[in-house]
This record gives sequence, C-alpha cells and structure tokens, in this order.
Amino acid sequence: MPFERLSILGVGLLGGSIGLALKSASNPCKIVGYGHRPATLESALRLGAIDEIAPDPAAAVRGADLVILASPVGVFKQLIDKIKAELKMGAIVTDVGSTKRTVCRLAEEALPAGVHFVGSHPMAGSEKRGVDAARADLFHGALCITTPTTKTDPTALRQVESFWQALGMRITRLNPEDHDRLLADVSHLPHLLAATLIAVQSDPAFDLAGKGFFDTTRIAGGDGGLWRDIFLDNADNLRISITKLRQELDRFESLLKPEQSEHLRAYLDKSAARRRSHEEP
Amino acid sequence: MPFERLSILGVGLLGGSIGLALKSASNPCKIVGYGHRPATLESALRLGAIDEIAPDPAAAVRGADLVILASPVGVFKQLIDKIKAELKMGAIVTDVGSTKRTVCRLAEEALPAGVHFVGSHPMAGSEKRGVDAARADLFHGALCITTPTTKTDPTALRQVESFWQALGMRITRLNPEDHDRLLADVSHLPHLLAATLIAVQSDPAFDLAGKGFFDTTRIAGGDGGLWRDIFLDNADNLRISITKLRQELDRFESLLKPEQSEHLRAYLDKSAARRRSHEEP
Repeated sequence: MPFERLSILGVGLLGGSIGLALKSASNPCKIVGYGHRPATLESALRLGAIDEIAPDPAAAVRGADLVILASPVGVFKQLIDKIKAELKMGAIVTDVGSTKRTVCRLAEEALPAGVHFVGSHPMAGSEKRGVDAARADLFHGALCITTPTTKTDPTALRQVESFWQALGMRITRLNPEDHDRLLADVSHLPHLLAATLIAVQSDPAFDLAGKGFFDTTRIAGGDGGLWRDIFLDNADNLRISITKLRQELDRFESLLKPEQSEHLRAYLDKSAARRRSHEEP
Repeated sequence: MPFERLSILGVGLLGGSIGLALKSASNPCKIVGYGHRPATLESALRLGAIDEIAPDPAAAVRGADLVILASPVGVFKQLIDKIKAELKMGAIVTDVGSTKRTVCRLAEEALPAGVHFVGSHPMAGSEKRGVDAARADLFHGALCITTPTTKTDPTALRQVESFWQALGMRITRLNPEDHDRLLADVSHLPHLLAATLIAVQSDPAFDLAGKGFFDTTRIAGGDGGLWRDIFLDNADNLRISITKLRQELDRFESLLKPEQSEHLRAYLDKSAARRRSHEEP
C-alpha cells in the first residue's frame, strides 16, 4: 500500500466499507472522511471506518495521497471543484461511481497537472444504505472496473488497481464509453425494470408476492437519489437499453401462442441455461 | 389429518417436498407416487418422499383419499382423463398449479359426482428443479392460494386448506379468474422479464453481471417447460400485464430528463418504499 494518507469523500455504504476493509487488513494508512451529514461522519468514526473527520472537502484532501470520491454520481462535479486547488502534487483521485464518462471528463478537465485521475467502478453494493450497512468484506470477490483513457497515467492506474485488489476485488479495464454502454444493459436496465415492476402492481397483486418477486425487485429497494443520478447521467445509453428490451418483449409476445409452444420453450430454456452458466458472485 | 392414503402425481420439487414434509411431521398416511420418469420415482422412494411407486396414474389413485396433481400445468388434462374412472367415492383431488382457471374447469367437467376438486396454488418453489431439490420445509411460512368456485364442496375445501396449513402454509382464497389475473402481474410478468432481461445481454455485458443482476434474474433459471405451460395457459392475462409494463416504461422514459429530475427521484423513492414495506416471505 503506497498510500499513507487517504481521503474518502462521502462516507456511506461504499465509502464506509472501504475504510472498514482497510482497517481490518491492519493497514497503517490514515483515513480522513468528509460527508455532508455530521451524524454519518460520527457513525463512521465510531465504527472505525475513518480516523478523522474533516470539516469540508478541501480540508479532507489536504496532504492526501489517494482521494476517493464516494458520493452519489450527481455530486462529483461539485466535489471536484471544491478540492482541485487543494490537492498535492502527485495525488491520485479515483471514484466509486456507477457511470464513468462524465466523471472522467470532469476530472480530466478540472484537475491540475501533476494530479492523476483514475476512474473506478467497484461493483459491490447492496439495496441497504448508509455507513451502518458498511462491511469490511463488501468488496471481497467482486469485480472492479477501471476506466483508463488516453490521458490516464499508467503508474497511477496500476496503483489504483492494486488498491482495489488489496480489498479483495478482481479487476477489468474498459474505456468509459464501453463501460457506460454495457452497464446500461446489465445494471441500470435491471434496476429500472425492478422499479417499474413494483409500480405496475395493484395492492391485491402485491399482497400475493412470493420469493421470486422479492428476488426480482430487491435492487429497487436502493436509494432513489443515488439511482436518479445514475439514470440521468447515462440516459442516452439507457434509452437504447429500454428499446432493446421492448423489442425483446415483442419477440416474447410473438411466441406466446399455442402454435409457438416449442419455440417458447426453447426461448425459456435458453435464458435458463445462460443464467445458470454464469456463477453468482 | 383425515387422509390415510395420498397419491402424488408428479414427484418433482413440489410433489417431493410434500412427501418429505408429511414424513417429517411423522404423519402415518401412506403416500403413493407416480411420475413419467422411473429414475425420479426411485429417487423419491430413496429420499423417503413416497412409500410406494405406482406403475401408472390410474393405479396411483386407486383407494386414495387425497390426490395431488403435481405435474406441470400442461399435463393436468391428460392426468385427469387417466384417473377419473379410478377415483373412489368421496376422494378429494387438488393440484399445485400456478394457473387455476383451466385446471378448475377441466376437473369440474371431468370428475364424476362424489369426487371433489379443490384448486390449490402453494406459492413455494425455487429455480432449482426435481425431487433432489425437495425440502421438508419448502412450504413453511409461504402462502397457499385456494381457488373455490360455486361448485366447490365446502367440506373438501376446508380439508384441503387444513392439509396445506399442516405443512406450515398461510391460506388465502381467490376465485380462479382473480387468481390468474393477479398472478400474471406479480409472478408471471416478473418471470418473463427475467427471461427477456437475460436475452438482451451481449456476452461482454453479461460478463459484468453483479449481485443485482443475479438477484433480478434468479427465477429465470427455472424449468422452461413448466413455465411455457404457465405462460400459454395464462396468455390472455399475461398480454395485459405486458401492456401495463410497456405503459410504465413509457412513463419512466418521460421522467428520464434533467428537467424531470425531482419526479424521477420521487418515482424511484416510491418504488423503493413500497418494496421495503412488504416483508420478504
């Protein structure tokens, strides 16, 4: 661990879990936390996720070797503006956002020369929220996508990847455009379907919900503000994903006839086999 | 338990679990099993889910006080035709099907006077399949919907409900039409969305699937033939459910704009709160 002083901006589920994971590995680095709610910061300190509370983002990043933006995606611009003049030469900034094009562009435009930005998307989380749900093992075995661009410093990239690996994560690299396009299909579309699936239920139908319904809609229990930011930031890709789903529903409906019985079964068998062929993380 | 001799037609996950649940409660009734695959019946006998293997449906139901149709929905007609002449006076027939209009109509048309049919939908199950996945506690705490009609014998209805309650289930009554309409929304639509959601993924997207995707699509790992039968039997209601979902996607897309940010958040918050307000079974 080449970082002696870490700054976590936004000490919720992800930010708090990073702190707990580092502490549980007896890491000697000092962790400074900032967040907009004092009660959350006090909880994070009490739980041992951070060592010190900073009064504002600028103070939080002063002297930091690694700064982790762990707020909702919609707050990144504001945070970058508040910290850009305070970062030391050689500091590395990364983030935990679920979308990557915007944060990479913003950071590369705003951060001064000698400060390195590396986009990260640690794909861990939960429908639970806040630092009280933070866990030292949240990242263990999960995938972290790093999103280098042509401007990314190779040494900083390797250091950020080593950081996530130290927390137990597997690493995949994608450019920010591919990341946002693929995640729209495999993460953002499932989330919006879960939310719409809840919305279409009448009360009498919802009262009959079984285990399958609860599995299917679990992710929709997540934070509305956080997901609003993700959806708006990736709206262009998400519209394409929705269009693909509509076309798939057309196809499904065309099979929903007795004379298509064998094709309907083949369709369902194919999805079932594909689902089972991927091991759950 | 007023039943001394039980017949289970179709000894898979549900049929097998019924047998195991009865045995674990040290129930003295004799359980005769029939299924079209000899290997499955041998497994069921070895696991203790049934006491005896019958060579055909007619032999399985001879002398039975309670007959449970536990095959896929699409096989019910054939089973009813094979057993109708063999049932003893006073016998009760029930089923475990996920759709109820067809089986209730078929049974009421075909079964002789003096034999009572009561439709049941024990809402337990799993994406796992077959008698090897059967569990004595599968039904515990889950909901069983009984679907009496104007022709249903009230004593038989109470006896069937007591039977499911003895397996640990809660009971709700619905008429077959309401059952199929509500289940299309809360069970069949989620299943088809899970299947279509898998189908729209490119291989590179699927490789990035995280816990949320696996939760959302878990039910689509279920048996294709079984679900094909359910979808075709409830196709009219399912088309209405799909239309409702399409309209909900329209609504969601209308909120996917920066100027609708507050409404988008309210939409997501509402679904999240509704999801969290229902306790998982």
